[in-house]
Amino acid sequence: MIFLPASDVARLVNRVGLRRFQLRLIDYLEQDFLRWEAFFRTPRAACHSSAGVIELMPAADAETYAVKYVNGHPGNPALGLSTVVGFGALADVNTGYPLLIADMTLATAFRTAATSALAARALAPAGAQVMALIGTGAQAEFQASAFAEALSIRELRIYDVDAAAMGKFVRNMAGSGLRVTLASSVADAVRGAQIVTTVTADKRHAQVLANDMIAEGVHINGVGGDCPGKTEIARDLLLRSTIVVELAEQTRVEGEIQQLPKDHEVTELWEIVAGRKPGRRFTEEITLFDSVGFAIEDFSALRLLRDLCEGTGIGERVDFLAQPKNPKDLFSLLQVNEGALRCA
Amino acid sequence: MIFLPASDVARLVNRVGLRRFQLRLIDYLEQDFLRWEAFFRTPRAACHSSAGVIELMPAADAETYAVKYVNGHPGNPALGLSTVVGFGALADVNTGYPLLIADMTLATAFRTAATSALAARALAPAGAQVMALIGTGAQAEFQASAFAEALSIRELRIYDVDAAAMGKFVRNMAGSGLRVTLASSVADAVRGAQIVTTVTADKRHAQVLANDMIAEGVHINGVGGDCPGKTEIARDLLLRSTIVVELAEQTRVEGEIQQLPKDHEVTELWEIVAGRKPGRRFTEEITLFDSVGFAIEDFSALRLLRDLCEGTGIGERVDFLAQPKNPKDLFSLLQVNEGALRCA
Repeated sequence: MIFLPASDVARLVNRVGLRRFQLRLIDYLEQDFLRWEAFFRTPRAACHSSAGVIELMPAADAETYAVKYVNGHPGNPALGLSTVVGFGALADVNTGYPLLIADMTLATAFRTAATSALAARALAPAGAQVMALIGTGAQAEFQASAFAEALSIRELRIYDVDAAAMGKFVRNMAGSGLRVTLASSVADAVRGAQIVTTVTADKRHAQVLANDMIAEGVHINGVGGDCPGKTEIARDLLLRSTIVVELAEQTRVEGEIQQLPKDHEVTELWEIVAGRKPGRRFTEEITLFDSVGFAIEDFSALRLLRDLCEGTGIGERVDFLAQPKNPKDLFSLLQVNEGALRCA
Repeated sequence: MIFLPASDVARLVNRVGLRRFQLRLIDYLEQDFLRWEAFFRTPRAACHSSAGVIELMPAADAETYAVKYVNGHPGNPALGLSTVVGFGALADVNTGYPLLIADMTLATAFRTAATSALAARALAPAGAQVMALIGTGAQAEFQASAFAEALSIRELRIYDVDAAAMGKFVRNMAGSGLRVTLASSVADAVRGAQIVTTVTADKRHAQVLANDMIAEGVHINGVGGDCPGKTEIARDLLLRSTIVVELAEQTRVEGEIQQLPKDHEVTELWEIVAGRKPGRRFTEEITLFDSVGFAIEDFSALRLLRDLCEGTGIGERVDFLAQPKNPKDLFSLLQVNEGALRCA
């Protein structure tokens, strides 16, 4: 089995280069979205507490099983900890043996941004150059660079209630060639943007985007509302939008659309990727990608990490699992001496 | 985070001694069964394929979250692989951070046997000395030694379709002081036994125990039937038995009682442990513990492993998760240079 800590994930990314890594991940996602119906799919299993949520996200095709453990704890940064950390495993469906255990804190940030970019390619106005970015926490640079790379974004209008987080974002993006403008409010950031990305972390119904902020023709990439009771976008604005989701069954519980009736029409992103449903249909259409994150995206990310490990020596080969010579002789691993065993 | 491969789990067991480890695990299970209602409880999430099943088993109390990944692939031994392997994690509910990732192949065998012993203490005839053991695969010695240690078992009557597996069992138990008799058939093994343990691995409705094999007053410890379509015990025999399960909702799908109507009366083991329901009520009663394995048992096992690690130096402290100095600056871990970032 390969054991892949976060430092090795970073090495894999740096080795191929950030931009190529992001494009390659979008390719992997696209491949897997194209064969969506071939997957074992289930809403994630969430365990909620007052402090946050811990989730398990399994997905599998006929050969490979993937699972991610991930949390969401909005109070963590105040403790010096990350809001979201995670790890995942790939396993062989035919034997059940785990093949890879990897940190997925970085991979979660990457695959969330890559999925947003994949959706925006189909939904954003053609040639969109200006994106508003509401929330400049841990996910922000991943979103910004994915959109710059996979679309034609050249200008970012950012806003965060935490000025230090905006400063961090500006520093991190300094070498990107992107124009970054600090806005004084959400409304200020959103004005004139063709794409609006929201990535805030409060675990409550916080109205980040009001209805009157959004003009016709805008694509909204709603990333932060991903938990029961946690939303970012005004209900009136949802009603004006064409809504695209990952797995409807999961998003109706966790996403922005938890504010809407259970039968409100939504399109699943894979249907658009597979050409079964249209992306953006007309210039004035307001589109919303109601992102919550789905297990197949983690499957794609783990698949990419595994493939990138090959031939590099990155990733530690470990004897992790019990491996008795005779599979029916698990007990032999204990090397029990007579005294230890004697019970009569 | 602590990383605990199977070799370290074996060291922890050997360090305290097999017998004390088993008794201590039964104690941990009892503690957790006593506060059953305080746990987050959910049936495991199973992903079935033609080759086997991969399952996720989460459980949590107010402080600690546990999850186990485990498979069941009956064809594995023919490939030189184990039927069941697993790994698990403990995490802090208040931050969502994983604290421990451990092999659970050994721990699964131990906790399955310990739960069987906990159930048998309440259900088996008082002073039972003879146990029939049907199936002498990877789980067999764990069951045998747990029953010898926690009950008064002194004689084992074993049967397996695989003679080599019986030979292995005899060799492994040679120093135990237990009398081991090889039977020529299931019926032969069962004759005269006060406890009958079935641990076979076929993934189909295999009738291992027929109704006429079991006399009044016997306790059946049914361990092998733990998957939809996988049972070991004749329906008529179930109808003669008082049935005890772990989580009824899960066992009705996976256990022997998948053969019975959904409203057939069963008792949950925790109710007996907590004194809310009686154990064995009368001498002639046939009792059945329809074991499938529940997540709280893995919680107990991981808790014990974590506690046993303390102060020993066993278990590797690893920097596994992404840990940026500023939690909002995950991107900094990539140490992206200007060329890599430039996208405009």
